[in-house]
Amino acid sequence: MFSLLQGIKMSVKVAINGYGTVGKRIADAVDQQKDMEIVGVSKRTPTYEAELAAEKGFPFYAASDKYLKAFDEKDIPVEGMFDEMLEVADLIVDATPKGAGYKETFEKAGIKAIWQGGEKHSLTGLSFNSMANYEEAYGADYVRVVSCNTTGLLRTLYPIHVDIGFDKCNAVMIRRSADPWDTKRGPINSIDPVLNIPSHHGPDVQSVVPDIDIQTTAVKVPTTLMHLHSVIVDLKEDVDTDHILKLWEKTPRIKFFEASQGVDSTAKIMEWAKDRGNFRGDLNEIAVWKDGTQVKDGTLYYYQAIHQESDIIPENVDAIRSMMEMEEDKMKSIQLTNAGMSIE
Amino acid sequence: MFSLLQGIKMSVKVAINGYGTVGKRIADAVDQQKDMEIVGVSKRTPTYEAELAAEKGFPFYAASDKYLKAFDEKDIPVEGMFDEMLEVADLIVDATPKGAGYKETFEKAGIKAIWQGGEKHSLTGLSFNSMANYEEAYGADYVRVVSCNTTGLLRTLYPIHVDIGFDKCNAVMIRRSADPWDTKRGPINSIDPVLNIPSHHGPDVQSVVPDIDIQTTAVKVPTTLMHLHSVIVDLKEDVDTDHILKLWEKTPRIKFFEASQGVDSTAKIMEWAKDRGNFRGDLNEIAVWKDGTQVKDGTLYYYQAIHQESDIIPENVDAIRSMMEMEEDKMKSIQLTNAGMSIE
Amino acid sequence: MFSLLQGIKMSVKVAINGYGTVGKRIADAVDQQKDMEIVGVSKRTPTYEAELAAEKGFPFYAASDKYLKAFDEKDIPVEGMFDEMLEVADLIVDATPKGAGYKETFEKAGIKAIWQGGEKHSLTGLSFNSMANYEEAYGADYVRVVSCNTTGLLRTLYPIHVDIGFDKCNAVMIRRSADPWDTKRGPINSIDPVLNIPSHHGPDVQSVVPDIDIQTTAVKVPTTLMHLHSVIVDLKEDVDTDHILKLWEKTPRIKFFEASQGVDSTAKIMEWAKDRGNFRGDLNEIAVWKDGTQVKDGTLYYYQAIHQESDIIPENVDAIRSMMEMEEDKMKSIQLTNAGMSIE
Amino acid sequence: MFSLLQGIKMSVKVAINGYGTVGKRIADAVDQQKDMEIVGVSKRTPTYEAELAAEKGFPFYAASDKYLKAFDEKDIPVEGMFDEMLEVADLIVDATPKGAGYKETFEKAGIKAIWQGGEKHSLTGLSFNSMANYEEAYGADYVRVVSCNTTGLLRTLYPIHVDIGFDKCNAVMIRRSADPWDTKRGPINSIDPVLNIPSHHGPDVQSVVPDIDIQTTAVKVPTTLMHLHSVIVDLKEDVDTDHILKLWEKTPRIKFFEASQGVDSTAKIMEWAKDRGNFRGDLNEIAVWKDGTQVKDGTLYYYQAIHQESDIIPENVDAIRSMMEMEEDKMKSIQLTNAGMSIE
Repeated sequence: MFSLLQGIKMSVKVAINGYGTVGKRIADAVDQQKDMEIVGVSKRTPTYEAELAAEKGFPFYAASDKYLKAFDEKDIPVEGMFDEMLEVADLIVDATPKGAGYKETFEKAGIKAIWQGGEKHSLTGLSFNSMANYEEAYGADYVRVVSCNTTGLLRTLYPIHVDIGFDKCNAVMIRRSADPWDTKRGPINSIDPVLNIPSHHGPDVQSVVPDIDIQTTAVKVPTTLMHLHSVIVDLKEDVDTDHILKLWEKTPRIKFFEASQGVDSTAKIMEWAKDRGNFRGDLNEIAVWKDGTQVKDGTLYYYQAIHQESDIIPENVDAIRSMMEMEEDKMKSIQLTNAGMSIE
Repeated sequence: MFSLLQGIKMSVKVAINGYGTVGKRIADAVDQQKDMEIVGVSKRTPTYEAELAAEKGFPFYAASDKYLKAFDEKDIPVEGMFDEMLEVADLIVDATPKGAGYKETFEKAGIKAIWQGGEKHSLTGLSFNSMANYEEAYGADYVRVVSCNTTGLLRTLYPIHVDIGFDKCNAVMIRRSADPWDTKRGPINSIDPVLNIPSHHGPDVQSVVPDIDIQTTAVKVPTTLMHLHSVIVDLKEDVDTDHILKLWEKTPRIKFFEASQGVDSTAKIMEWAKDRGNFRGDLNEIAVWKDGTQVKDGTLYYYQAIHQESDIIPENVDAIRSMMEMEEDKMKSIQLTNAGMSIE
Repeated sequence: MFSLLQGIKMSVKVAINGYGTVGKRIADAVDQQKDMEIVGVSKRTPTYEAELAAEKGFPFYAASDKYLKAFDEKDIPVEGMFDEMLEVADLIVDATPKGAGYKETFEKAGIKAIWQGGEKHSLTGLSFNSMANYEEAYGADYVRVVSCNTTGLLRTLYPIHVDIGFDKCNAVMIRRSADPWDTKRGPINSIDPVLNIPSHHGPDVQSVVPDIDIQTTAVKVPTTLMHLHSVIVDLKEDVDTDHILKLWEKTPRIKFFEASQGVDSTAKIMEWAKDRGNFRGDLNEIAVWKDGTQVKDGTLYYYQAIHQESDIIPENVDAIRSMMEMEEDKMKSIQLTNAGMSIE
Repeated sequence: MFSLLQGIKMSVKVAINGYGTVGKRIADAVDQQKDMEIVGVSKRTPTYEAELAAEKGFPFYAASDKYLKAFDEKDIPVEGMFDEMLEVADLIVDATPKGAGYKETFEKAGIKAIWQGGEKHSLTGLSFNSMANYEEAYGADYVRVVSCNTTGLLRTLYPIHVDIGFDKCNAVMIRRSADPWDTKRGPINSIDPVLNIPSHHGPDVQSVVPDIDIQTTAVKVPTTLMHLHSVIVDLKEDVDTDHILKLWEKTPRIKFFEASQGVDSTAKIMEWAKDRGNFRGDLNEIAVWKDGTQVKDGTLYYYQAIHQESDIIPENVDAIRSMMEMEEDKMKSIQLTNAGMSIE
């Protein structure tokens, strides 16, 4: 079943810088792809996440000498130093809080690199979403995968933009304030508006697709599970609700839910993902409520929920494939990525 | 200083049906007005709220015989039965969960009545907001004061509607899920969208001002303090942000906050209200962030926060004054109400 | 009653009544055992949980005619009626909110039954915990598996009771108020004490091991993830902390965590369980903090965290094995159950 | 600078360092006392709290030149510099996060000083609770008022210690994680145990009354309103529950609540305090549930709730009176303080 070439392991060698919420997920997703492999992971402190990664056999590389002792005390083997990891990898995915600082190092090492949405567009000049601009990243050296919220907006808006077009989109982002594991961050009982109007999410969408007209406002609320967007789109054409639903049905990484299934909250979506057996209970797709979608007098209203920890993971995998020129066709890459990650 | 008429106490006699979150606040607000007095309060169970009301000297009337014993056991004096309360009052304010059921009783007793926003518009055919339609309620027998959210929308939108006009308003309501005392209701960690699109809030605004074009969507979030609205208004005229702020400055019951004061969340607004010495820490005004308000290409964006327990209280007092024909001029009634309630 | 083939397969046929938080987990756990199989599941409404169960191939049986239509509309096949399920099963596990009402039906059908800890001890006269009284349930017809909190207390206290003995245990239960999916229940921002002192958890421990001296108090707090117990035990012998830790090390279904791994909260424990790849992110073991355990002047202090949705699941599996006389040795059953469920 | 009349008023001049949660409350409490006055308040940033204090007429003193401009921009008058405030005051109450650093400055200025419970006992060598050791502080120069939790434990335990005595007390502190206004701090959905066993609260009680035998453990939970303690006391004498309740009835600053009044949670206690008209909705007393108190076989079990923002405020006022030798009798000082602060 495997070709000769596959037999001799034409797999792309990927390193991960930062093994937290995003880094650990990208590592697993890459590990699940047939045409990629993890050759190194870098993490400063030997937490339980490092222990579990070591059990999987991911080779750890130390950021500097001073962290070696701590890993040693926890009996987590260290393969080498950070610089050595850059030598064995074809591409590095940065998933650290302040990844921009590594750019010079990566350039010197002559390694391709992906950053996450916390960095600015100007770092790479190329902001990525699989459906919207996979081709643009083909062969590129440096790519930024946009944030979870921007990815969510692009997943549902881009097909409408292409198929029907819209004059203007207003999206209100109701943001979870901390990830489930993050016990330091509040608020415990408050709604905090992002007073900068419009919020940065609109321009971030435009960093991928410049001609989308979008304004966003945002609030933070005391929940950890998912972001939720209330989106209002002035369509160029007065199609019916069904037209939009059908459009999304054929778009990858959009998953429908309905109140009639008992799924009427972000909590129930997360329960569904756990019950389905998704690893870590993740939901890589954007959740859209079928019965919360409606076109009224040419305006489309819908709600979507974003699993902030995981929706960008498949985009990272696709970005690797495009940058490494492993697959020209975006749909084929999406299919491969989804298959590896058990996305429907 | 007092006129002869005031000397002989021309105060309107008000009864309160239901002494919970809203009822207790209306009772206190009426009690603080020079031209009104509380002649009776009806409550089923002798909770701490009844104890505190008895200490204030509000006369309790029993809904039926079966509740008398419980009040007796708590040493809370009962003045008489519910029907007797209707005889001594000029007007009754219903603040029970299901007030519609009392309408027949009130009609038979020949007493004027106010209901709250939980009831349908059709119950009275007259839905009330002080600035928007005070005059309509003049002399009316039955009035419904609209809900906290609708009141909030009308406070800020009505002056724009009159002064500039707008083509369309989209408001996303981020709703607190339970009042601070209400420990039964969740969610604890979830965002629950109101999947009926548009939500009922838009039509409710139109029950007061039919020619306002507004669509609303809503989500529930795990907080108890305030609702928050993200409002987007397509103005008929491209005025600047300052124009809007000046308009609101001269509108009663709108209160500005700014992040530069350290007020960047609903929690901080509530802290301000407590620090100011507001009774119960209430905020009867609608809170608007000056630095969260912006006109961009003819579209107005703003956030407002609604203290769900108390913003409708002054409207109830004004409604009494209009229905009882105590004051023809809405601005004078608003001024009187505000003065009694220590609203700036 | 058993066919030849079934005889060869030697797997016990289990039915599940109620397919919610507990029912769905028991179904999966039974399904993972080599010596058991799910022959039927009964659930009233065709929610997403039913859809996912149908995808797994669990046969649905309808509680009554009136639910058939709803299942039909969702294209979920129904195998038969509830009574028919009782005929094909050897044992039924009740996981409904009010399971006591089914006892007569089960008796008439001549089927063995397990109930959960929400039921009273008197329903079966036999309350179960794998380590404490596996043998008592051997061949029994009706067994009650005690609640998540009681199971947690027994897991850690029973080995101390046997090995060292203790004069008295005081446990304060800090209870999560709702399961993650349960968006109806509060409080959002409150601590609610259980004013009945002592709480019911102490006597419930004694329903399994009568000679344990334990008093418990309890509060409810606004979190969904896990219960946490602060336990204080007056030991009969002044052993050192290490003695206790070694005792627990050899006890099944106790899992140590440490702050030095970065696991200093219930949130981090749940993150660990997700990262480990546990199905649904469950933790069937009781979590004990090694660095939160200390013996001081003959008194043992420790914290333990209980994953309320899943700690009782392996006990249900063991109870089936004991009741069906499949295995006499508790340690062997525990090992089998753990192996099937991927518990370390 | 001071007039003859001020001399006749004999009021003690108090300065406040730090005008946050605690500082602003002490300022108001001192302001309400007939024998004390606020002569200065120092705060770094001109937030809304500064605005409201300025409206009350509290004179602001600037911590350094660099803050003057910001106050000027907000039109908040500044009376002088920090050093000048120390000259006009008899005593300063420190309510800053890191107050220990000021000790040298206060010593040089020759001014008496009070610190809060965040500082170490060794800073003053004298830790204070009104009932337990008022006399010790008589004439003292430097006093530390213990933390909210320690104050709570002393309020209810000290009378038992004196009247009956106890062998040992175990208290489990279920702590609110952030104050209501504090939107930065989490957790949003977690229980975080304090793994150091025993927690610091026990020794802190002993810093006031060394011969009390107490061990404490603590957890943090996602609520903002109040701390709650589950307390277990091995009494020296087997008195009945009523004995304990009567003891507390005659102890100042303990307030009973009962579930039969509808007060079954910290949220309802806070609602009661708001309804009673307490300034800021504070509760200066320790809340004890009458129906959550029980003596069982010589062991006393009770729950108490602590309003972390305000229970220590009257102790600060009493400490001033003792240190300034204004009143020798603790009961008289307590009575004066309570009267000024409208504590029952």
